[in-house]
Amino acid sequence: MVEKKDGKELVLKKNFQLDLAKYLSEKDFVYGPEPELYGPIAGFYSYGLNGKAMKNNLENVIRKVFTKNGFFEVEYPLICPEIIWEASGHLKGFNDPIISCSKCKGSFRADKLIEESIGVAADHFKDAELVSAIKENEILCPSCKGRFVLEIKRQSLMLKTIIGSDTVAYNRPETATTTYLPFKHYVNFFRGKLPFTVFQIGKAFRNEISPRQHLLRQREFTQAESQMFLSKEMKTNFEWFSDVQNDELPLWTEEMQKSKKKWEMISLTKALDKKFLKNKAYAWNLWLSFQIITALGIPVEKIRFRQHHSDEKAFYSDDTWDLEVELNSFGWVEMVGVSDRTNYDLSQHSKYSKQELTVRTENGGVFTPDVIEIAFGVDRPFYAILDLAFFRREVDAQRTVLSLPNHIAPIQIGVFPLLKKDGLPEKAKEVLEVLDDFKCYYDESGSIGKRYSRLDAIGVPFCITIDHDSLKDNSVTIRERDSLKQIRVKINELKNTINEMMKK
Amino acid sequence: MVEKKDGKELVLKKNFQLDLAKYLSEKDFVYGPEPELYGPIAGFYSYGLNGKAMKNNLENVIRKVFTKNGFFEVEYPLICPEIIWEASGHLKGFNDPIISCSKCKGSFRADKLIEESIGVAADHFKDAELVSAIKENEILCPSCKGRFVLEIKRQSLMLKTIIGSDTVAYNRPETATTTYLPFKHYVNFFRGKLPFTVFQIGKAFRNEISPRQHLLRQREFTQAESQMFLSKEMKTNFEWFSDVQNDELPLWTEEMQKSKKKWEMISLTKALDKKFLKNKAYAWNLWLSFQIITALGIPVEKIRFRQHHSDEKAFYSDDTWDLEVELNSFGWVEMVGVSDRTNYDLSQHSKYSKQELTVRTENGGVFTPDVIEIAFGVDRPFYAILDLAFFRREVDAQRTVLSLPNHIAPIQIGVFPLLKKDGLPEKAKEVLEVLDDFKCYYDESGSIGKRYSRLDAIGVPFCITIDHDSLKDNSVTIRERDSLKQIRVKINELKNTINEMMKK
Repeated sequence: MVEKKDGKELVLKKNFQLDLAKYLSEKDFVYGPEPELYGPIAGFYSYGLNGKAMKNNLENVIRKVFTKNGFFEVEYPLICPEIIWEASGHLKGFNDPIISCSKCKGSFRADKLIEESIGVAADHFKDAELVSAIKENEILCPSCKGRFVLEIKRQSLMLKTIIGSDTVAYNRPETATTTYLPFKHYVNFFRGKLPFTVFQIGKAFRNEISPRQHLLRQREFTQAESQMFLSKEMKTNFEWFSDVQNDELPLWTEEMQKSKKKWEMISLTKALDKKFLKNKAYAWNLWLSFQIITALGIPVEKIRFRQHHSDEKAFYSDDTWDLEVELNSFGWVEMVGVSDRTNYDLSQHSKYSKQELTVRTENGGVFTPDVIEIAFGVDRPFYAILDLAFFRREVDAQRTVLSLPNHIAPIQIGVFPLLKKDGLPEKAKEVLEVLDDFKCYYDESGSIGKRYSRLDAIGVPFCITIDHDSLKDNSVTIRERDSLKQIRVKINELKNTINEMMKK
Repeated sequence: MVEKKDGKELVLKKNFQLDLAKYLSEKDFVYGPEPELYGPIAGFYSYGLNGKAMKNNLENVIRKVFTKNGFFEVEYPLICPEIIWEASGHLKGFNDPIISCSKCKGSFRADKLIEESIGVAADHFKDAELVSAIKENEILCPSCKGRFVLEIKRQSLMLKTIIGSDTVAYNRPETATTTYLPFKHYVNFFRGKLPFTVFQIGKAFRNEISPRQHLLRQREFTQAESQMFLSKEMKTNFEWFSDVQNDELPLWTEEMQKSKKKWEMISLTKALDKKFLKNKAYAWNLWLSFQIITALGIPVEKIRFRQHHSDEKAFYSDDTWDLEVELNSFGWVEMVGVSDRTNYDLSQHSKYSKQELTVRTENGGVFTPDVIEIAFGVDRPFYAILDLAFFRREVDAQRTVLSLPNHIAPIQIGVFPLLKKDGLPEKAKEVLEVLDDFKCYYDESGSIGKRYSRLDAIGVPFCITIDHDSLKDNSVTIRERDSLKQIRVKINELKNTINEMMKK
């Protein structure tokens, strides 16, 4: 739990994460693990009556930023036949290293055990390295403190099913692969002119062995991934770059990490000069991922870009940086990955489908474009925003407030007639009609203080009260959630005033 | 293909459906069956770069109508463990009757065969009735004209998978069941006060044996289903009804169908008086389903409500009506089903989970509420809108136009500088900034006529041209897609003018 005091946040309790999870369920943001009714299965959550409204807001912001920057959305089926996952490499390579306890027989992810026990990122370790690390550091079973059987088994993360009576298929483990498949349609749509930019927001599934960390690691989750198709030449000579070249990003290079230096805000031009970033197109995609996360209302000072270490990257990746956000519950957490995937994916699908996936050069040649990907989820930023918004008022520690960004809150405006009589509810209905464009919540029950704190608790930024004076002078009181400031506004100026206040 | 002539539509070709499917793929609305790249599997389609934008518009309209009428959205996982589907009855009852050809061994849905061969709805037939109908009418295999083995096998429509290492689970076959599961949270959220109204928009999966009819019958599709929880008393004494009592719906009762009468527009009050509809709450839900479908831009004259025959309803249903839409491709097609599901679902989940799913009465008693459901999909209205919008211009039969509703079109406004020089592109960029709230498409290549017809073909309602006069007098030409009318408007009045035109 965090208290805001003199503009500073103080973590008050160690069990912040548990408090937050309970709170999110009670306040109808996130229920689960589901099915709660029948006994939960780890890694499945549902979005409640406030949470879903907020999730929709997030998705709309993501859509808007992508669309404004020239990206087009597609929607591909979630279930795809086996050959697609053979081509993409998931069928063979997409699995978790499992190690079992010799005593209680419990199964665990070997890399996560190492990470949690000795603080070393181990997701790129080979099986032998995992075994060595567990042996050398004498890591014991977290459940029973027994010793592990020193052998790694690989469990597929894919959820298998059967279409028709015999076609093997899988629930997709990510959206990216399915975004590549309609490539020929993109060539047609964009009339062959690179770069093409497309994105997909949708469900993906991973059969994690022991998912934890609430929305951060689920078996079913919502991804948002963009793919930019371009030529190798275009990367260094990238037209869109000039508009953003002076913008700064908080970069933390592999070198800075190794020499224990802090990340620094640095302009993209300078980052290229210093060879922190390989090329303009990649820099532009990093910039775009930053636009998205900040547009969602995550504060700049909570964000850094961490470059992947040379031995941490996927084998086909030319360069990868993660956008990380500092949470109260889990510290720095990966929110977005930006990867230059080269032409690996298109080449694989071309090979397996035996179809040409190419574009024409101006001289009549053909080539397979490279892809730069921005990969993230909707659930993680959703969780991050709530994690950072959750605080108790200094004036009244009993009252929990969600300091949600105005455009992200599930409801924007509470509308309260002071009393249930004297024509005040009728006047309140007038106000509701004026505010037709906003998501409003009408409440006439309980004291005004109670109604305020009910809506503070779910992050509603503004509440409007209609009192007896409103009947005489056609004005109402707007009360702002965080500052507790109240102002008096004429009803005919209300829409403009709220519009201005919403922008802050 | 349909030509609009003197306000009337003429079906010109028998292969309208094939033409339309081809067109939707070429114009980036719907690709498939997917995976096209690897050889298609029936019943899977993807939404292309225009189609996905349009689908988002549909979903937003649906959300808006539900939300304005007091419904809250939730999002439940798509994958749920077996016990949920035992409780809901899907595991046992959700299957298709399959009959096989003795000659070519092909498998077919027996009910669909009967429907297509002799025009009798057979989806409520028992196995023996299906066999009799096929035998008596001497229905032969559509592939090889062989005789059928007179035996029905039941194929489950559920897509099975495994969570973890051994938990049997299924991709959900509909959203409704998963909307009931967080019931206890709803009681808390709505402070126990009925009616509660919630909805869910999301993916569902059915392993159809031989899906046909493009988006109308898929193996993976998007449902939009609302659930109203209420007491039995509330149905006849339903407060929300008074606001809509004089509104008319095109009702076609079981009686009218049997006596070959046409449906008639009839006010809800009259429909209740005549006992066409059982109660006010049910009537209100029918009304709401009509609001949604007309808000999507489907014309009233293409809509009717068909009452289910007594022997056609699900066993737990008290009354069911389908909203049907008349398509050019397939005639009258079911678009929405409105069902009084009684308290069947909550009772089942209470029984299987051993948990109380009740609300309190004012006297301190408890009861399990009834549910009235509006069930439809996003894909069918999506298809319907395109089916009805597709026509060729009388003036130029080569030019196909999509007469899409303004708020549903994937792009609202085309912005064209007459030439690529003389400062016209810069002026066009000014126009784009003024129209920031709309989805615009900038195009500077090709003749203006070509650019118009490119955007007509994907249903863009307005195109704006910037010419040399624009530089002098700051005005531009707006050209309307269907009427071909052109008007001249000052740039500083453009936003208001377009806003007004959009409403029509």
